[in-house]
Amino acid sequence: MNQVRLSKVMELMKKQDLEQILISDPAGIFYLTGKWIHPGERLLCLLIKAGGDHKIFINELFPVTDDLGAEKIWYNDTQDGVNFVAEHTDSSKALGVDKVWPAKFLLRLMELNGASSYINGSEILDRVRMNKDEDEKQKMRIASELNDKAMGKIQKELVEGITEVKMSQLLAGIYEELGADGFSFNPIIGFGANAADPHHDIDKTVVKEGDSVIFDIGCVKDSYCSDMTRTAFYKSVSDKGREVFEIVKEANLRAIAAVKPGVRFCDIDAAARDYITEKGYGKYFTHRTGHSIGIECHDYGDVSSINTMPVEEGMIFSIEPGIYLSGEVGVRIEDLVIVTKDGCEVLNKYPKDLLIIK
Amino acid sequence: MNQVRLSKVMELMKKQDLEQILISDPAGIFYLTGKWIHPGERLLCLLIKAGGDHKIFINELFPVTDDLGAEKIWYNDTQDGVNFVAEHTDSSKALGVDKVWPAKFLLRLMELNGASSYINGSEILDRVRMNKDEDEKQKMRIASELNDKAMGKIQKELVEGITEVKMSQLLAGIYEELGADGFSFNPIIGFGANAADPHHDIDKTVVKEGDSVIFDIGCVKDSYCSDMTRTAFYKSVSDKGREVFEIVKEANLRAIAAVKPGVRFCDIDAAARDYITEKGYGKYFTHRTGHSIGIECHDYGDVSSINTMPVEEGMIFSIEPGIYLSGEVGVRIEDLVIVTKDGCEVLNKYPKDLLIIK
Repeated sequence: MNQVRLSKVMELMKKQDLEQILISDPAGIFYLTGKWIHPGERLLCLLIKAGGDHKIFINELFPVTDDLGAEKIWYNDTQDGVNFVAEHTDSSKALGVDKVWPAKFLLRLMELNGASSYINGSEILDRVRMNKDEDEKQKMRIASELNDKAMGKIQKELVEGITEVKMSQLLAGIYEELGADGFSFNPIIGFGANAADPHHDIDKTVVKEGDSVIFDIGCVKDSYCSDMTRTAFYKSVSDKGREVFEIVKEANLRAIAAVKPGVRFCDIDAAARDYITEKGYGKYFTHRTGHSIGIECHDYGDVSSINTMPVEEGMIFSIEPGIYLSGEVGVRIEDLVIVTKDGCEVLNKYPKDLLIIK
Repeated sequence: MNQVRLSKVMELMKKQDLEQILISDPAGIFYLTGKWIHPGERLLCLLIKAGGDHKIFINELFPVTDDLGAEKIWYNDTQDGVNFVAEHTDSSKALGVDKVWPAKFLLRLMELNGASSYINGSEILDRVRMNKDEDEKQKMRIASELNDKAMGKIQKELVEGITEVKMSQLLAGIYEELGADGFSFNPIIGFGANAADPHHDIDKTVVKEGDSVIFDIGCVKDSYCSDMTRTAFYKSVSDKGREVFEIVKEANLRAIAAVKPGVRFCDIDAAARDYITEKGYGKYFTHRTGHSIGIECHDYGDVSSINTMPVEEGMIFSIEPGIYLSGEVGVRIEDLVIVTKDGCEVLNKYPKDLLIIK
């Protein structure tokens, strides 16, 4: 187990007077143990105890020989794995459980009286994961460097007759050539009216002249995620498209300029949102300004109007304001930033000036 | 809402003396309402009440205009959605919750005293979903027909120098050409030693002469899944490979021959497993014989040694025995079957004789 990370977790457990927590999220288990285990619908959890003597419960179908820093408790498909968990939790104490732990396991553990009470204990690990160490920052830089390169290549593929689905397939090949480990999320490549729908699933729409084209793409490299958005226009741009583009770009720059330790996430959100509102498009910026990112593309901690947490050095998150005029034009511009001592480092170097792809 | 399906669910609720259940799984919500909503980490759930007056809790980010047969209760990212759920559940009664409902929601609902007790209520809907209606059977046939065609095309792509990853990319294109809606699961295309690892993730391994090549592939069409496995050999086959292949094929045929209403899932598993054991390879058949399939590739109900449920007309599941000799050779042969009045209909028509791809 990574002892620095583990000791931070145990420190927060102590602060919260919590002597036992269960971590079930594979990303959380990877963060602490360095090992990915993907159990599908089967039980997998790591029990961290204030007194040490940690346990990890694993199905025999996923044989792991590495030392995980926790005793492995094996079970198989003919056994009730939660029974083993209940044998190792302290039934007289509260238990922090992972926010994503499926009800089928939690209800069974309750039935077996695994603990005196149950609380959502995820904030402890989530909080520790927000502040990236040097190794993580370096991996995030590398993943974004690959993403910058991929953006250059995929924009060149926008040609007459191409569909969103085809672009996404080409992007998979581009990441592979660049040595990335795959998508960090299903890319959103949206043409025209689809670009104006921030939750569009890619389809077989063909690009046409005048379309705004959103490229919201990211890859995984060495278990860390990149995520960047650029918006281009195909062959020509309308006056409205140009106007909206420049507003979003300025909002992106203002939010980035607002980032430094001590500033609250909601203040960064406001830096983008207030400007867009001032320009008359507030109601067309329909989502939060950003999200934390690391091992998961959406890590804990939003850049949103209701998150009053101050940002700290080492946090990494996206800045991605957008304006969506339904059926007409959509623009989003997104970069990742690392909070530094007195500002931030922008991980994406890809140009963000208005681009018309001929 | 699909009234036939809903009434079956409500009948089972009555049998279990359960007056309210929460369904959160998007596949379950689709099954009842005909609408896919993918909320990601956000709250989405359908509250079914014995007295009618069903509710569905949706984030405003996912605007749905269709009539879902349940009153829509909207919330946004600045609100605690579970609060709305608690306002509509009966706090004096037990509540069935979805097996996959994340602990963050369940613990919050408990805090708000949403019900007098909480049980895993998923079996109700899962049980109803096991017996496919005519519309579902037809969709399953079509998805498997596409899969048969895809198998023919992808096997032709096995050529000198090709990698597993490249095969998977080609398969994506094949499904697209055939009009499928994408993969039903990440294909397992394994060469040689990788074929001998039933949980292998595809990588950049290059095919070489004598390899057994597992093609475990499936697509989605109209929200229903196909899933089939064939094993071929590249250029030549060893005596051991041939022996193991013929045993697996016979095990597949024996299990299929065992399928009819009233026979238990464990009996079908035994039909394949006993034969493989008799031939001396029992310990190399390391997984269950099959799984139910429908809207999800892994629906509720395993063909395993511990499932004593009798099968019924209209159930659809896979029959996929395998033998894995670590580092050497792996063979799996899988078909989907629909249980009929007196036997079963095999959905996959693709040949399963030993094939050497030159």
